[in-house]
Amino acid sequence: MIEIITTGGTIDKIYFDAKSSYEIGEPQIENVLREANITIDYRITPLFRKDSLDLSDADRELIKKVVSESAAERIVITHGTDTMIKTAQWLQDVSGKTIVLTGAMQPARFRFTDAIYNIASAITSVQLLPPGVWIAMNGKIFAPASSRKNVAMNRFENI
Amino acid sequence: MIEIITTGGTIDKIYFDAKSSYEIGEPQIENVLREANITIDYRITPLFRKDSLDLSDADRELIKKVVSESAAERIVITHGTDTMIKTAQWLQDVSGKTIVLTGAMQPARFRFTDAIYNIASAITSVQLLPPGVWIAMNGKIFAPASSRKNVAMNRFENI
Amino acid sequence: MIEIITTGGTIDKIYFDAKSSYEIGEPQIENVLREANITIDYRITPLFRKDSLDLSDADRELIKKVVSESAAERIVITHGTDTMIKTAQWLQDVSGKTIVLTGAMQPARFRFTDAIYNIASAITSVQLLPPGVWIAMNGKIFAPASSRKNVAMNRFENI
Amino acid sequence: MIEIITTGGTIDKIYFDAKSSYEIGEPQIENVLREANITIDYRITPLFRKDSLDLSDADRELIKKVVSESAAERIVITHGTDTMIKTAQWLQDVSGKTIVLTGAMQPARFRFTDAIYNIASAITSVQLLPPGVWIAMNGKIFAPASSRKNVAMNRFENI
Repeated sequence: MIEIITTGGTIDKIYFDAKSSYEIGEPQIENVLREANITIDYRITPLFRKDSLDLSDADRELIKKVVSESAAERIVITHGTDTMIKTAQWLQDVSGKTIVLTGAMQPARFRFTDAIYNIASAITSVQLLPPGVWIAMNGKIFAPASSRKNVAMNRFENI
Repeated sequence: MIEIITTGGTIDKIYFDAKSSYEIGEPQIENVLREANITIDYRITPLFRKDSLDLSDADRELIKKVVSESAAERIVITHGTDTMIKTAQWLQDVSGKTIVLTGAMQPARFRFTDAIYNIASAITSVQLLPPGVWIAMNGKIFAPASSRKNVAMNRFENI
Repeated sequence: MIEIITTGGTIDKIYFDAKSSYEIGEPQIENVLREANITIDYRITPLFRKDSLDLSDADRELIKKVVSESAAERIVITHGTDTMIKTAQWLQDVSGKTIVLTGAMQPARFRFTDAIYNIASAITSVQLLPPGVWIAMNGKIFAPASSRKNVAMNRFENI
Repeated sequence: MIEIITTGGTIDKIYFDAKSSYEIGEPQIENVLREANITIDYRITPLFRKDSLDLSDADRELIKKVVSESAAERIVITHGTDTMIKTAQWLQDVSGKTIVLTGAMQPARFRFTDAIYNIASAITSVQLLPPGVWIAMNGKIFAPASSRKNVAMNRFENI
């Protein structure tokens, strides 16, 4: 069983016209998995709906607690890209679990988006990787300690 | 020949991840018309990239000037929905031209959007309506003097 | 009230993998109208699921009978493009009703399709045109007697 | 470097209206990888544009030859689903290479498709799996010898 924890981020951004502002909506990962006719066993736990710049250390502690107490040994976390590496490092000392973080540069609700690809990459890699914390972005698997978000190029890369 | 004037609004909203804010991007109407394989003669004049709440009366005067001086007798204006009716009324005394305003509640870049439908409705109705100013939204043609945006229901309706 | 009669055609084509063949599925127009948040009053009558090359004269008689007996004065017919003009001419002597035929070159289920635009064009023009039979394709309104499908260019045009 | 060999199948199906028949078009995988902003190093080798029911044993020998002679140690093959397992087994004795086959139940050109997910799953797993031949479908990784396509359920499953 794969545990999927959603924390918000661009991947779940939605537009509310009345307010003329974008906010983070319901987790989109379930729609993506259904569209792909996935037969793996999974459970989705919506935890936050936050831009990752707004995640506090207390929020990260809660993510860690949920991850640690989950019955699942394989965990995917959807997360905003700006502090994804920080959260990944926060989880480094969780033992015995394979944890993969992913997100998107373009919302899943867009006609053109990297969200579907990135979710597939995370769900696939969490089944194959050994215990530890990993980031699935831009078609690659990154170790948090040796990766960064290149803001100018809008992508993740190895240091 | 149909003159298409773009002023911004939700229809052209785009997301910039680095800034974590939504801004108004390039007019999307050209992509929509190309995808539908349209053979009508048209010209696109990008005028503003503004949320319609940010359009000033001076901006409306400029729209009016461009509309009045256009060689075209049939004009479509893409516009944010919040002040679309106000701009339509501003153009009421332009004579001899059929003017149709449209916009969208969901950006054209979304996988699910009313933008394609609304653009088609405006381009179709501008060819058929008599001179005057009209609004094409929610599958209907509205006269500005007797319509309103129902913010709670997120749609246009007759008064 | 607008009566929408669906007869099949490319607009409703769907792919069944097990059979490795494309067939005509459920009418897609309802999905398109819902996505655009349309507030007009309409009713959908699914009549055939046929490629328009397979429509017989008896089929056209049935379409004519349904159109004639409908309580609605404004009628949209979704139809394959290959014989759309023939069916339009078949309906020429129905009096007192505005009838607009439309279809698509690319199925509505495709990510890139002219189906949404064409449906919007038909629903918009049926509200504005006088009684008679019309074709809404490629962004224009055609009279059946003076139009043709240009197969090489894959579009409708005036003769 | 990942070598991507395309052989056709539903994933690349395209519709030609003039002929009123579906055919297999250009490989779609490049569009999918570009949309996801992938930074891995890859090369695409288009080999066939065939429905997998039309692939002969000679075709499979050619696939095997191209795989064997490729400089790449990690190879993804896009393939129709009906004989994907047969081709996978044909390649079983290629040594020293990680080979992942994938395809789609719904064409990549559809608005709703499993193609993007499956391509991501193949590209991700080919980077992580040991040498051997694998199938990436329905969110899982299958060993060819113990899997089958369930035609009635339209999905792959373990025997």
